[in-house]
Amino acid sequence: MSQTDYQGKLDEFRKYIRKIKHYEEAVGLIYWDLRTGAPKKGMNERSEVIGELSTEAFKLSVSDEMGEYLDYFTEPDHQQQLDETNQRIVGEAKKEYDRSKKIPPAMYQEYVVLTSQAESKWEEAKETSDFAMFQPYLEKIVNTNLKFVELWGYEGHKYNTLLDMYEPGMTVEKLDEVFSALRQEVVPLLAEIQKAEKPDRSFLRQKFDAAKQKQFSLFILKELGYDFEAGRLDETVHPFATGLNPGDVRITTRYLPEDATSALFGTIHECGHALYEQNISPDLIGTNLCTGTSMGIHESQSRFWENMVGRSREFWSRYYGDLQRTFPGQLDDVSEDAFYRAVNHTEPSLVRIEADELTYNLHIMIRYEIEKGLLSGEFTVADLPQVWNAKYREYLGVEPDNDAEGVLQDVHWAGGSFGYFPSYALGNMYAAQFAHTLRQEIPQFDELLAKGDFAPIKEFLSEHIYKYGKSQTPNEIIRRVTGEDLNPQYLVDYLKDKYKPLYGLS
Amino acid sequence: MSQTDYQGKLDEFRKYIRKIKHYEEAVGLIYWDLRTGAPKKGMNERSEVIGELSTEAFKLSVSDEMGEYLDYFTEPDHQQQLDETNQRIVGEAKKEYDRSKKIPPAMYQEYVVLTSQAESKWEEAKETSDFAMFQPYLEKIVNTNLKFVELWGYEGHKYNTLLDMYEPGMTVEKLDEVFSALRQEVVPLLAEIQKAEKPDRSFLRQKFDAAKQKQFSLFILKELGYDFEAGRLDETVHPFATGLNPGDVRITTRYLPEDATSALFGTIHECGHALYEQNISPDLIGTNLCTGTSMGIHESQSRFWENMVGRSREFWSRYYGDLQRTFPGQLDDVSEDAFYRAVNHTEPSLVRIEADELTYNLHIMIRYEIEKGLLSGEFTVADLPQVWNAKYREYLGVEPDNDAEGVLQDVHWAGGSFGYFPSYALGNMYAAQFAHTLRQEIPQFDELLAKGDFAPIKEFLSEHIYKYGKSQTPNEIIRRVTGEDLNPQYLVDYLKDKYKPLYGLS
Repeated sequence: MSQTDYQGKLDEFRKYIRKIKHYEEAVGLIYWDLRTGAPKKGMNERSEVIGELSTEAFKLSVSDEMGEYLDYFTEPDHQQQLDETNQRIVGEAKKEYDRSKKIPPAMYQEYVVLTSQAESKWEEAKETSDFAMFQPYLEKIVNTNLKFVELWGYEGHKYNTLLDMYEPGMTVEKLDEVFSALRQEVVPLLAEIQKAEKPDRSFLRQKFDAAKQKQFSLFILKELGYDFEAGRLDETVHPFATGLNPGDVRITTRYLPEDATSALFGTIHECGHALYEQNISPDLIGTNLCTGTSMGIHESQSRFWENMVGRSREFWSRYYGDLQRTFPGQLDDVSEDAFYRAVNHTEPSLVRIEADELTYNLHIMIRYEIEKGLLSGEFTVADLPQVWNAKYREYLGVEPDNDAEGVLQDVHWAGGSFGYFPSYALGNMYAAQFAHTLRQEIPQFDELLAKGDFAPIKEFLSEHIYKYGKSQTPNEIIRRVTGEDLNPQYLVDYLKDKYKPLYGLS
Repeated sequence: MSQTDYQGKLDEFRKYIRKIKHYEEAVGLIYWDLRTGAPKKGMNERSEVIGELSTEAFKLSVSDEMGEYLDYFTEPDHQQQLDETNQRIVGEAKKEYDRSKKIPPAMYQEYVVLTSQAESKWEEAKETSDFAMFQPYLEKIVNTNLKFVELWGYEGHKYNTLLDMYEPGMTVEKLDEVFSALRQEVVPLLAEIQKAEKPDRSFLRQKFDAAKQKQFSLFILKELGYDFEAGRLDETVHPFATGLNPGDVRITTRYLPEDATSALFGTIHECGHALYEQNISPDLIGTNLCTGTSMGIHESQSRFWENMVGRSREFWSRYYGDLQRTFPGQLDDVSEDAFYRAVNHTEPSLVRIEADELTYNLHIMIRYEIEKGLLSGEFTVADLPQVWNAKYREYLGVEPDNDAEGVLQDVHWAGGSFGYFPSYALGNMYAAQFAHTLRQEIPQFDELLAKGDFAPIKEFLSEHIYKYGKSQTPNEIIRRVTGEDLNPQYLVDYLKDKYKPLYGLS
């Protein structure tokens, strides 16, 4: 085949990939619209539209035409002619193709129905705190996931194959190591903090005008460098960020009338996700690499901006006055230090989504260990309530009164998302490791925060992480940027450096 | 072929039609989003998404598969087995199929490029009031339309084929007749009004708080029966209504800071379009009949609700107090009668989109005569400025100072929309004719308006017009509902009955 034919084939393939991406972008916009105020009577027909377009995108990604492209471009002769980006595009398409092709359609269809039923059964079970009602569904979901793993194949632990879906390359071996190191330091630190005096938080629970909260959120977003020409802020019950393309990365938040900080930190969190997606290289637009490289790296950016920037002493030395002026008379008697301490309060709790920066990781480890144990057969679904409660007692020193606030609290398992939870804690570890590098590369890091000059930080992250999108793996990124593999010590150091002085510990 | 095969084929065809509709719904939502706040940096890629989905919908509508369905269901044996609705679905699909198939793709592609260039050239020409700059583009557009008409075929006047695209069944013969009758009455009426005393309108030009305008618009929409569970109100520079499906019909408006009535009547206008689309029969969802039957009938509903309801004396006898209370201190000294007279002021003007209920029809007739003359060769594009100005002088007694406020004022011709303009005036005539029937069928019509009880009116229109969607032609509807063909006398009577007392004429 001549060089012209080869180039023609490559152009065709790229156009084909772009077409799939276009369908996904349309579906993404429809979902954004559904969550931000689409009228409910139009939902039935809109679901059909989503079904039509999603099915079309799926069909394209597993079609014979796709199979032929992949065969062609994975032939050694042809593969070696591809540049780095095109190799990654082919690799990513092949990974998805293989994963989809290995599951018999009827089995997958059954699983979709199962998880859909399980989600509504979970809701009912949670309302009545009745794990037994949910148990048979969860058993089937676990069994199906085990069958999927057999079909997909696995190396080492079966759970590895599921982890890889959210965090490419991540393994049980690695997670055991980093989580164990983290737990050994966090559990005693938390115990020490428990004995110390708690900061006053009462002033955070006042009536804070929603319009002013919004105004302050918009102000902070602009300060952080969120590009409003490439995004917009809306309100939803559950805040989220969605990158339709790098020129259209939308975020949402919610303004609780009696909590000034929920919307603010939620907004900064979503802003972190958005900064990542807004700064993916334009070269990757229309490819399957035009997204964050993994859930964990994505979460590292939301956590970095929320916690390491947004909850830092320097940040509030710059913005606390603005906040006070936004709510005149409401925070006048609260010192900057008192505010800083209040928004960094840590305390063991039962509910993951309300957990703070320090305890969050422990909530995740519990779920990780349960998922791993279910996959290996160490324990069964029937054991879960007991295992859950024992682990909460051991790691966090708290125990739920019922399964609704215990093992039934998250929807993830009902939806079949096994392997997703670790991303949250990985995000914290990656974030601390990136932050360590940032402080070395930008020695005036703290001064920049104190000046509200985030541009050099955003530029560093864009240049070294964001622009790559999914064209490098999480491990390639963390090694290139920080010079080593994932190392939980950075998070341990960060947490100790932050919380020990906060709670007057030595 | 057995009955089972036949039914199977019909199910397949209906599914195929529904698929096209789903693509169109997705594209409709993307357009809504673009106009209500999509971030501009995402536009490039979003245009590609629109292109992808529109092309797909177009391909489906002219595919060999579609051709086979149409051949099959237009065979007399098969056609007679179809129920009324399915016959209409086939007919509509065939009409679109034939129209698209008759234009060579290269010619159509060229035309798309031409109109796109023409639109930007028109913008430039309008800014500098330089018709000569736009003239060569318009000449090409007219010539291409003439070629299209030759390819599509025509009966009687060539313009008939273009009229039929917007108003199925409408002809030059009919329009000449109704416009001439209307003009003969409206021009002298307007001349009489010109001599009478003008109402005071100064109080309409105050600062009206936008948030309160919005609140009042929302209130009126609820009163009129706009279903907020099947729609939403947003703000755009150019107000519009868009029916994605009957459960999701969105409208937009704009709040001018110094004009209380622009947003209000604009909202009621769009509400009229929306009531139509929200009340199409659920049976038609997912078919090509799930839309208004024509531009003219659609416009009749926006005009009916805006003018015959929203500008009626009875309406304001019910709502003027609410309006006064919405803007305390701003309208206290303005009597209900003075307000009614001010919002029904009529005066010849140069600009169509600012024209009132009475003069609007004259603006339309001028455009109609020009389009007709261009198609028949009665005059050339080069003649247009002169023809335009002469007709404005003759019909409205005003003459533009330059082409920007004259022949260059509308974008329609640059976009190639020949045959569209008459819909606006047809809408007024249909509206008056429907209103006449309504008053006969619901003798307490005026009392209902005065009570703000619009449900019986909305129900009558739903039952006799809206629910049919596009499953009946405009003429079938007007005959069935009013017992006769389009008759301009109803509009003449309505205008005389309204304006003579308003201006103290005998």
